[in-house]
Amino acid sequence: MTKTLRRLALSLLPLPLLAAAAPPSPVEKLRDETLAGDKVAWDIVEDLTTEVGPRLAGTEAEARARQWAVKRLKALGFHNVHIEDATMATWVRGAETAEIVSPYPQKVVLTALGGSGATPPDGIEAQVVGFDSVDALRAAPPEAVKGRIVFVSHAMKPNQDGSGYGYYGAVRRSAPAIGAQKGAVAVIIRSLGTDYHRNPHTGLTTWGNVTPIPAAALSIPDAENLARMLKRTPRVTMRLTLTPRFVGDTPTGNVVAEVPGTDPSAGIILVGGHLDSWDLGTGAIDDAAGVAIVAAAAKKVMEAGRPRRTIRVIWFGDEETGGAGSRAYFAAHKGENVVFVGESDFGADRIWRFVPGFAPENKPLADRIASALFPLGINLGRGEVEAGADLGAWVRAGSAGADLGQDGTRYFDYHHTPDDTLDKVDAEQLRQNVAAWAAMLSLVANAPEPIAKLPPRPERRQ
Amino acid sequence: MTKTLRRLALSLLPLPLLAAAAPPSPVEKLRDETLAGDKVAWDIVEDLTTEVGPRLAGTEAEARARQWAVKRLKALGFHNVHIEDATMATWVRGAETAEIVSPYPQKVVLTALGGSGATPPDGIEAQVVGFDSVDALRAAPPEAVKGRIVFVSHAMKPNQDGSGYGYYGAVRRSAPAIGAQKGAVAVIIRSLGTDYHRNPHTGLTTWGNVTPIPAAALSIPDAENLARMLKRTPRVTMRLTLTPRFVGDTPTGNVVAEVPGTDPSAGIILVGGHLDSWDLGTGAIDDAAGVAIVAAAAKKVMEAGRPRRTIRVIWFGDEETGGAGSRAYFAAHKGENVVFVGESDFGADRIWRFVPGFAPENKPLADRIASALFPLGINLGRGEVEAGADLGAWVRAGSAGADLGQDGTRYFDYHHTPDDTLDKVDAEQLRQNVAAWAAMLSLVANAPEPIAKLPPRPERRQ
Repeated sequence: MTKTLRRLALSLLPLPLLAAAAPPSPVEKLRDETLAGDKVAWDIVEDLTTEVGPRLAGTEAEARARQWAVKRLKALGFHNVHIEDATMATWVRGAETAEIVSPYPQKVVLTALGGSGATPPDGIEAQVVGFDSVDALRAAPPEAVKGRIVFVSHAMKPNQDGSGYGYYGAVRRSAPAIGAQKGAVAVIIRSLGTDYHRNPHTGLTTWGNVTPIPAAALSIPDAENLARMLKRTPRVTMRLTLTPRFVGDTPTGNVVAEVPGTDPSAGIILVGGHLDSWDLGTGAIDDAAGVAIVAAAAKKVMEAGRPRRTIRVIWFGDEETGGAGSRAYFAAHKGENVVFVGESDFGADRIWRFVPGFAPENKPLADRIASALFPLGINLGRGEVEAGADLGAWVRAGSAGADLGQDGTRYFDYHHTPDDTLDKVDAEQLRQNVAAWAAMLSLVANAPEPIAKLPPRPERRQ
Repeated sequence: MTKTLRRLALSLLPLPLLAAAAPPSPVEKLRDETLAGDKVAWDIVEDLTTEVGPRLAGTEAEARARQWAVKRLKALGFHNVHIEDATMATWVRGAETAEIVSPYPQKVVLTALGGSGATPPDGIEAQVVGFDSVDALRAAPPEAVKGRIVFVSHAMKPNQDGSGYGYYGAVRRSAPAIGAQKGAVAVIIRSLGTDYHRNPHTGLTTWGNVTPIPAAALSIPDAENLARMLKRTPRVTMRLTLTPRFVGDTPTGNVVAEVPGTDPSAGIILVGGHLDSWDLGTGAIDDAAGVAIVAAAAKKVMEAGRPRRTIRVIWFGDEETGGAGSRAYFAAHKGENVVFVGESDFGADRIWRFVPGFAPENKPLADRIASALFPLGINLGRGEVEAGADLGAWVRAGSAGADLGQDGTRYFDYHHTPDDTLDKVDAEQLRQNVAAWAAMLSLVANAPEPIAKLPPRPERRQ
């Protein structure tokens, strides 16, 4: 089936570029050579997922990933490769088992959400009460919830732009705390995903001032099975054992590498992704692909000759479980003249949309980037640049930036699951990503005009 | 992606049948009404997978399934519904965890093969030696294997007719015993499957006179990751814990239901599938679908008026872990005049091929069946009828029979995995299965001519 999808996706990649009347510009040459032959990104994704594998933030596996990253980025010829340390409160998974006790006894597959509280070691047993949405849970009287295991479902579907994760994401982010406030003994959700495999989707849940209770995601087949049981009878009893725990403060960190520029007064470019991953898969699409894409693209620009502006490649720590890496980086560097940022954290399927976020006076630069991207099948989108969890603070503070949006149709089939593994990355689409990034970075880094700041904007509430 | 495949599959289903010059025959009417509206099969699959779920042979879950089956078959109006008891040596799964210890520490996902031996409770640790095929393992000198964890890979690919399971199946059936004979401490295989999910494929392995050792299947992403590690270094160490055990002799059994015929001298028809399932999934495609298809088809024939020949529907116990159910049934009934058998045990995707297995004098009956099936998109195949693991003994003994071959392109994506769940069954394709079976059963049960026996043939060696 992957093959079918891949064929569909590839049919959307550009035809071999026709011979133009004029010889290709340096940026066209860079783009097309990257599209045809980049191996740097694939090797990073393959090697990181094979040689390190899962790398949960704050654990020794993430620390091994940092050492691996320093070695690789130095080997690729980057300058000033170093780790910037940070500290975080670290959560680790424990046992996680569950079964329907009655009336239809059988095991179910689930996984703890990041930040989940724990049951006693021998578990809890309680009646399940189901809700179709987080809004239905919000509206429920506490007496319907108290002492129960709350099950919350949703209707998320795949979309090319990944939208849906925002609204439906409240089921994961907020439902556990809402359930806890109403007296639930645990909250289990339909995985925030779009697949039909017995691989539940983990991800962070947030508690605010509420004391954490056990919170877990059922695989979607298990969630639908539970929904069918609840349709037959309101009296479904479940036994649940979850023993995750916080292990206190441990080290995390960001790995930084530079392509030095010739003109310090022209400002710095930050590009990044995150080095940590959830612990269930090997973090191939989330986000080995992202760190690979930005590094491979920066290397291409470096190889084409020293650019005007310094490009700083940052592989952030702890994106997944709280953002300690990006917070530390912004706090330490916010005084620097960062003129442009871009992040890759949405897998490696083909980029289909370029959303520029420049000040009006830089429209000519945005237009030059768009022109370089059209032949890759990338069209111009409008809207607010997000630059993701790791670099969003910079665009909110006024740096220019851009989003290169990947096709997210199958992203939430694998996101945060054991299935996030190397085989989900398509080498040809990955090269299209690197080509797009290389073209954009080359144009921004070498732009002769100044890159202006924008007015700061507040963080949007989710 | 399921949707894409489904669309492809459905595009192969027949166009609405054109108005014929003549009014439809009774069999055409039965077929087309079933195709348009059967709900019996879907309800069996949904209810069995929801209300019983996994039902490993010899366990209390299989016993619950038999009680469920008796109740359902009686409710459907079948006659003489009863259980025929049998006894089996029962194997149950225990703990199963594994990790690469060095040089690339990370957990791997695997599952014990049926019949696997156990490690000590705290596991074993040993160096891994890899082989690309069972033939390569066969050729290896014992000193390359002794004291090692043997990893065996293979190149199985999906095929419409399911072929590949025969040859590549030796990796699961035989490699563990071969490894044990050469002194391996455990054998782990690339799952005998065609998917890319972290859901390993279990299934029976056989030992002959060899003492069982721990034997497990890695998910395919894990197997490919291990292969990449072994490509980087021959010194990969793994820790493996598997604690399955045999629990001694426990009950299994076959659930039998009848559509009584008018003419006892015309012989009996046996149709079946198996009620037991592996313990990882809910046994939707393997084989809730099969028992549902044959029962729903037999019910259609029953509703159309009492047939000439008795149709006996058998939901066998213990197909997966050794075949105690079918052996007991054949031993108890082999003196009866069984003139035709058919089994459904290959999921519920569309039937694309009818392979008749009649004596030459019954060619007209085979032709009538083929004519009734062509409008469903089912063509005529040639070859030896297998009638599957549960009813194959009858065709080998000389009963006529037929295979209605389902499209197996995605069958080995889910076979014997946690992913064998209701959502893998497509309601429209399931109805096509029931329609084909109903048409065939109606023609065989009501055939005015005698149905002849064939010469017995030996069991093929695998």
